[in-house]
Amino acid sequence: MSEKRTDVNELGEFGLIDHITRGNKQHQKSTLRGIGDDAAVVGQGGQYAVISTDMLVEGIHFDMMYTPLKHLGYKAVVVNLSDIYAMNVAPTQVTVSIAISNRYSVEALEELYAGVKKACDFYNVDLIGGDTTSSPKGMIISVTAIGLTDSLDKVVYRSGAKVGDIVCVSGDLGAAYVGLQLLEREKQLYLNDNTITPDFSSYQYVIERQLKPEAAKAAYDYFKRSDLVPSSMMDISDGLSSDMMHICKASGVGAYLEEGKIPLHPESKELALEFNMDPVTCALSGGEDYELLFTVAPEDLDKIRFMPGAYIIGEIVERKDGLKLHTTGGNIHELKAQGWNHF
Amino acid sequence: MSEKRTDVNELGEFGLIDHITRGNKQHQKSTLRGIGDDAAVVGQGGQYAVISTDMLVEGIHFDMMYTPLKHLGYKAVVVNLSDIYAMNVAPTQVTVSIAISNRYSVEALEELYAGVKKACDFYNVDLIGGDTTSSPKGMIISVTAIGLTDSLDKVVYRSGAKVGDIVCVSGDLGAAYVGLQLLEREKQLYLNDNTITPDFSSYQYVIERQLKPEAAKAAYDYFKRSDLVPSSMMDISDGLSSDMMHICKASGVGAYLEEGKIPLHPESKELALEFNMDPVTCALSGGEDYELLFTVAPEDLDKIRFMPGAYIIGEIVERKDGLKLHTTGGNIHELKAQGWNHF
Repeated sequence: MSEKRTDVNELGEFGLIDHITRGNKQHQKSTLRGIGDDAAVVGQGGQYAVISTDMLVEGIHFDMMYTPLKHLGYKAVVVNLSDIYAMNVAPTQVTVSIAISNRYSVEALEELYAGVKKACDFYNVDLIGGDTTSSPKGMIISVTAIGLTDSLDKVVYRSGAKVGDIVCVSGDLGAAYVGLQLLEREKQLYLNDNTITPDFSSYQYVIERQLKPEAAKAAYDYFKRSDLVPSSMMDISDGLSSDMMHICKASGVGAYLEEGKIPLHPESKELALEFNMDPVTCALSGGEDYELLFTVAPEDLDKIRFMPGAYIIGEIVERKDGLKLHTTGGNIHELKAQGWNHF
Repeated sequence: MSEKRTDVNELGEFGLIDHITRGNKQHQKSTLRGIGDDAAVVGQGGQYAVISTDMLVEGIHFDMMYTPLKHLGYKAVVVNLSDIYAMNVAPTQVTVSIAISNRYSVEALEELYAGVKKACDFYNVDLIGGDTTSSPKGMIISVTAIGLTDSLDKVVYRSGAKVGDIVCVSGDLGAAYVGLQLLEREKQLYLNDNTITPDFSSYQYVIERQLKPEAAKAAYDYFKRSDLVPSSMMDISDGLSSDMMHICKASGVGAYLEEGKIPLHPESKELALEFNMDPVTCALSGGEDYELLFTVAPEDLDKIRFMPGAYIIGEIVERKDGLKLHTTGGNIHELKAQGWNHF
């Protein structure tokens, strides 16, 4: 091994993946899309599988102080299904691997799997495998989601956005992030004085968006029903800025977003202001909303107008024009990727 | 959550998986085989994917004191490919997810991925995705392997063994376990006196079987070439006893194994005796050999006779006769599953 020691922070998650997977050789004709989208695409002979995987680590992605195990199992599955929907494919199977320390009981695992099963039942996917093992400390959940499809024509990548396309989202943004801030605040209050019982009843929406998010199945169903194939798509896991940037980069285009059109739930707005945060910033940089960010050709505009829950938030422009936010005050800001950096 | 607290040790890994996945509903017709074999089988329309996943946890499955990162990356991929070969399918793609604490550098990750790539190149599989994230402590690697096939007829399950079938293994057993004992002993010696440099040169075979195992690709290739489809198969990851038990249970049969026919490498024998262990016990209970354990119909006996590296070790009998070992001394012992219990 080289003597050099580069801290992983210097590269960040995306830089790290780029760095490490550089120079990978491809051996199989059946590998149609590898690393670099929400999911990989493999297959041949008119049958294809879209595959995505994610790892959730205790103390990094979730905090056991405020995450019910059932919600955690549910969320671990949902965030992976979201990646499959982001390819415009319905998920069909999942594998779930769990490593747990011996501080967890069989009953705790049952709770976790109750959440896994609930997500499987709700989204019509089958749990087909996994691994259960021990860890010296904490819990790690690794989920792989699979979506089988016989039509490659309808698979949507990040790379298909064209100048003039309309930028849309399938629902409101920023709530999951605001929910996390609320949970963290209440945790600190509780740690300082454990006689306090947090009352979340006024903020059920943002709490649920954080602890028990849903994948945008309704949007997928609508696309199918209306025979609409977005030109590009991904799910919003890192925040609108960062994820819009991914689409722009993959498609070789720019985009402008209208600040005033970014959908925010009233509860997110109210609570963001209570935390002295700009609600739009929460939407741009928050992440974990698992709504779909997608672009459609101008001729599909009418179909989007009737899409329940969807919002038109901007337009695809030429690459040289970059990624810009038109503020309600009439200014133009350049947007930077500000996704999560877990290292 | 219920007030009851059952320790996961009470159930063990297999009991736990049975317990937790009981009552799972199936939603998709494309799920052809779910939990309970080396890999799941999904697909439709003449194209199928065989899928398996495994998680390796630092401090449980590997010890950084004697595991070179490149070997670790290689092994993490290989143990998953082994599960695909165990279904009589060639693996085609893998995803690799890694959680690491910040004590690992970019250079360390590069070493690990160099091993991943080496395994991908050697076995002709493509790295199509994964996740790289941080962990509060230690390293966790989760790999999912996929094998695409257009022929369901040649997929081999654990459940097809029939009375009268011949029991075979693709290579010698027990070496990986003996190698682990050696590494553990040298580690203890080093911890007691760090001026000692361990000399493994006389025991390269067992060390390599532990640190850099290979999947039984040659056996898969031979089956294909000779148009031989085993009646049942699995890979030996938990030890011959435990894995033979899995085949017997899944097939509703018994088996007898001939002690004198269980293949042992000279180095394994010599070293086992040095450790005051019975070499056959190492083969029966050791695990991690990643050879294939398979059964063939009596009419295929000739094909097996010419199979390089393969050994005939017993016969499938009726269920009521159980799983027995005929010792070289002429005694008959009942075998019990003694696989690894990580909890």
